Amino acid sequence: MTITITAFERSPDGGKGLARDTRIRWALEEVGQPYEVRLVSFRAMKEPAHLALHPFGQIPTYEEGDLALFETGAIVFHIAETHAGLLPDEDHARARAITWMFAALNTVEPPILDLVIAKFVERDKPWYAERLPLVEDRIRDRLAPLSARLGDADWLDGPFSAGDLMMVSVLLRLRASGMLNDYPNLAAYVARGEARPAYKRAFDAQLAVNTGKLPSS
Amino acid sequence: MTITITAFERSPDGGKGLARDTRIRWALEEVGQPYEVRLVSFRAMKEPAHLALHPFGQIPTYEEGDLALFETGAIVFHIAETHAGLLPDEDHARARAITWMFAALNTVEPPILDLVIAKFVERDKPWYAERLPLVEDRIRDRLAPLSARLGDADWLDGPFSAGDLMMVSVLLRLRASGMLNDYPNLAAYVARGEARPAYKRAFDAQLAVNTGKLPSS
Repeated sequence: MTITITAFERSPDGGKGLARDTRIRWALEEVGQPYEVRLVSFRAMKEPAHLALHPFGQIPTYEEGDLALFETGAIVFHIAETHAGLLPDEDHARARAITWMFAALNTVEPPILDLVIAKFVERDKPWYAERLPLVEDRIRDRLAPLSARLGDADWLDGPFSAGDLMMVSVLLRLRASGMLNDYPNLAAYVARGEARPAYKRAFDAQLAVNTGKLPSS
Repeated sequence: MTITITAFERSPDGGKGLARDTRIRWALEEVGQPYEVRLVSFRAMKEPAHLALHPFGQIPTYEEGDLALFETGAIVFHIAETHAGLLPDEDHARARAITWMFAALNTVEPPILDLVIAKFVERDKPWYAERLPLVEDRIRDRLAPLSARLGDADWLDGPFSAGDLMMVSVLLRLRASGMLNDYPNLAAYVARGEARPAYKRAFDAQLAVNTGKLPSS
């Protein structure tokens, strides 16, 4: 059955891989599943046809036969659960890999998202400069323990998993801030993720959409 | 095998059910699993013994024999996956219920968390009053489409699921703000969650810890 995902017709980041379809593309590349992409404009995202797929009017979505999903974490989990390569077979190791997925999305990403919002939405506000260090401190409150836990391991818990895919994706949003440089093992962890052939293919595919150099699917 | 979770020795909310152990207690009550509670002080949460369980030094954690998990979403998912009552059996319905878990934690909770942080950490800042409406607008950007999707249904997708448990738990954090009152179907949805016997037992158990009226387990 054909897998179809949605992505921005024109990504706000211009193709730097930060739009969330990159996470889905990466997961599909890791498990070796081909997929089609339907591009959606900002206007179309808020229209009934897309809202029926994604109640919050965002991308990505995932369609496969009768199944329609939204929400990046849920889509990556579905891919990981239905194909080999992103979750360990052993029950406890699997539960721990899933734990890192949730930790990436609900513990590490929220303060990073706050920084992204501050930079994009509140940059012209009078409080921007004074508030920024508070937001950055909240991010460090996550990076420091994450760095301590990772130590000198390659991945967070044994072999690369959907938990690493999600954590690397979340940390990539920090690259422009330079904050990762204070945690060399996290910077190396992110680089290790980006060096995976599956990530490269996913990145190139989303970049091609945004530079118009290749068809989207 | 005994299930042991951790909770605040003294919850910052004084027992209003907003500490995240309530979500785990609720899930365990829904599936009818008894559990023990180990209370942790703020100081002990940042010490090596607890950090070995929870790298970010928070509660709740979950221990069952050799299995140790952290992160609320992952723990609720593990409970839902290993006991009947919180996820549908049918594959597609199950994937959609999981989608709502992730949507609650990664799409709806972040702006709500931002409001909580603003109220607790930034209330004395000069920008507090001017910035608050921006944060509230970002919450409404989630509540309005959520309300539209729920419509007049009891739960988000068929019978009550772990997705509803998580979404109700996230929305409960908004009660004090009064923002839910603008969306009567969401307010009724939250009330429906709170009226479940399993929720009441979970709420009473966490309240007892914070009022000292009952032992914690």
